Amino acid sequence: MTKVEEKVSNKQVLAASYITGNPKQSDMYLSTSTISLQLSSEASNAVLVKNLYLSCDPYMRGTKTTDNKTRLFYSFSPDSLIIGYGVCKVLDSKHPDFRKGDLVWGVTKWEEYSVITITDSLFKIDHTDVPLSYYTGILGMPGMTAYAGFYEVGVPKKGDHVFISSAFGAVGQLVGQLAKLMGCYVVGSAGSKQKVEILKSKFGFDEAFNYKEEQDLDATLKRYFPEGIDIYFDNVGGDMLEAALVNMRRRGRIVVAGMISQYDLDEPQGIKNLVTIIYKQIRIEAFTVYDYYHLYPKFLDTILPYIREGKITYVEDIAEGLENGPAALEAMFTGLSSGKQVVLLASE
Amino acid sequence: MTKVEEKVSNKQVLAASYITGNPKQSDMYLSTSTISLQLSSEASNAVLVKNLYLSCDPYMRGTKTTDNKTRLFYSFSPDSLIIGYGVCKVLDSKHPDFRKGDLVWGVTKWEEYSVITITDSLFKIDHTDVPLSYYTGILGMPGMTAYAGFYEVGVPKKGDHVFISSAFGAVGQLVGQLAKLMGCYVVGSAGSKQKVEILKSKFGFDEAFNYKEEQDLDATLKRYFPEGIDIYFDNVGGDMLEAALVNMRRRGRIVVAGMISQYDLDEPQGIKNLVTIIYKQIRIEAFTVYDYYHLYPKFLDTILPYIREGKITYVEDIAEGLENGPAALEAMFTGLSSGKQVVLLASE
Repeated sequence: MTKVEEKVSNKQVLAASYITGNPKQSDMYLSTSTISLQLSSEASNAVLVKNLYLSCDPYMRGTKTTDNKTRLFYSFSPDSLIIGYGVCKVLDSKHPDFRKGDLVWGVTKWEEYSVITITDSLFKIDHTDVPLSYYTGILGMPGMTAYAGFYEVGVPKKGDHVFISSAFGAVGQLVGQLAKLMGCYVVGSAGSKQKVEILKSKFGFDEAFNYKEEQDLDATLKRYFPEGIDIYFDNVGGDMLEAALVNMRRRGRIVVAGMISQYDLDEPQGIKNLVTIIYKQIRIEAFTVYDYYHLYPKFLDTILPYIREGKITYVEDIAEGLENGPAALEAMFTGLSSGKQVVLLASE
Repeated sequence: MTKVEEKVSNKQVLAASYITGNPKQSDMYLSTSTISLQLSSEASNAVLVKNLYLSCDPYMRGTKTTDNKTRLFYSFSPDSLIIGYGVCKVLDSKHPDFRKGDLVWGVTKWEEYSVITITDSLFKIDHTDVPLSYYTGILGMPGMTAYAGFYEVGVPKKGDHVFISSAFGAVGQLVGQLAKLMGCYVVGSAGSKQKVEILKSKFGFDEAFNYKEEQDLDATLKRYFPEGIDIYFDNVGGDMLEAALVNMRRRGRIVVAGMISQYDLDEPQGIKNLVTIIYKQIRIEAFTVYDYYHLYPKFLDTILPYIREGKITYVEDIAEGLENGPAALEAMFTGLSSGKQVVLLASE
């Protein structure tokens, strides 16, 4: 007798069309599929998971770039599942490193249950004395991005003068706090008065400013960095990078995590002050967190004690239910999230 | 009785005016001064030398930059001695590290005899089985620049695809040969058909091209680097940098030794392709040889055997007599020198 495969309902979020910029709620739609909660015997190395938390991150956007070779971000294509980081519980596994009951974080899909076949960025969660949702943020990809960018690319030392653009983002907040813990002078830029206040009052930045209120970014940076910048953690590129370049100190480092100001332009802005790197022996280095995941255990050794001892502040904005995922993603991009934007699907 | 100080005649080359670009013969003039060949007892840490060889190097030019803080190159000012690297013999010393009879290389002045007070970049010459003049080039500052830029900044590995602009220059020639010795694929650009031929036939470059004959540098680089560039050793900046940026491989390194195309512009060229560093995790690093002189002994251990074993080709163009120095310097800048341009003052 053939065993009849039992399937369960699987709610999903899909892209409605190609998304070429920041995704809006209307760019996505909900659908329901079915899925078997047991992997077939041919599914070698695959892992079947129940998605608990889904993460909304700034890289989750379309880009104007049509050249596949230089495309950083996947473009959402019509009727494809939204892909993103999440925290999951393993329900079935054909992978030697994962077993039923394991908690993991990594790249999954926006649905209730997922079969994960690309497992090279899937991490087992060994420490559950901290909220599981943290593994979408401070203990996950954004945390590793901040850690790798600041320590490995920035090579900071005590007393360094550190400037962070998009400082209110999940990565920027952590970079600033890591820099403060190292004894650096830290200034961040953000896009609202409220964010500026929170950076100073809650996250311990020495100074912060609202870039939208500044007429001359060069003068702004000279005001906050009369002695120059040692590390510029760049998330935006464009005019802010121009201003930072002329305010760098000798042998300064520009850590490039992103250049969000450039992605939607038909032609990127020419950077005139690049030549100044010669006069001051500047290093500009762009990086991706994927090249640093081998440091994840070392990262946890650093960050977990900071969290347990309350030395790092971390704020989440948790939307409940997959159906509220599209709105949460839009809110993250429009700056309306009041902390790291997470979508809660199930608590276990 | 007071001892009468004996002085000898001292021929010198001075700047006739401020020099804001490449120096021409007419920007300099000859004069004769006198000098005592004994240091006074107050001249602590100074060294009195007889200049044997003087070096003509591309950094010896004026710049439009008037901001002293970002000025890379000294501007020549009216009636000041031309300053440059040279090989010298110590005639008297109040410095503990140098004694009469020592041969040294480092920063000196364009005159027969000099008192050197800034001795932190003065190196004793211990190996005289190679021509002394080599210490103005392959065994001196240009050699150290090539070595530090290629090995320390470029971090090359066997099989890397290496592109060098201004490849015919003293630094570029050596970078190319070091890269070949490491097992890299090496392409250089130069400004004449003859230089291109010599790069290939004499210096062992895999390929070379005359940038003046190329209409579309992006297409040119795609032709020579269909799989992309791992290391771009940049001496020119501008359009060549734009083209290199879009042809870099993932995690490629752009080693910036200079951006000669930009120094004489009223406003530097905006670099539009800088944003591509994000897509491919590129590092751009500008350096100065001064930060790497501590590696000089290690450098000699690498380069001296290559020279002795004939594994590196090195060509000099030696002008005789200080009075021919200004013409030699102009020739170096106009590309007329047939090798590393040196001025011979005295053979010992």
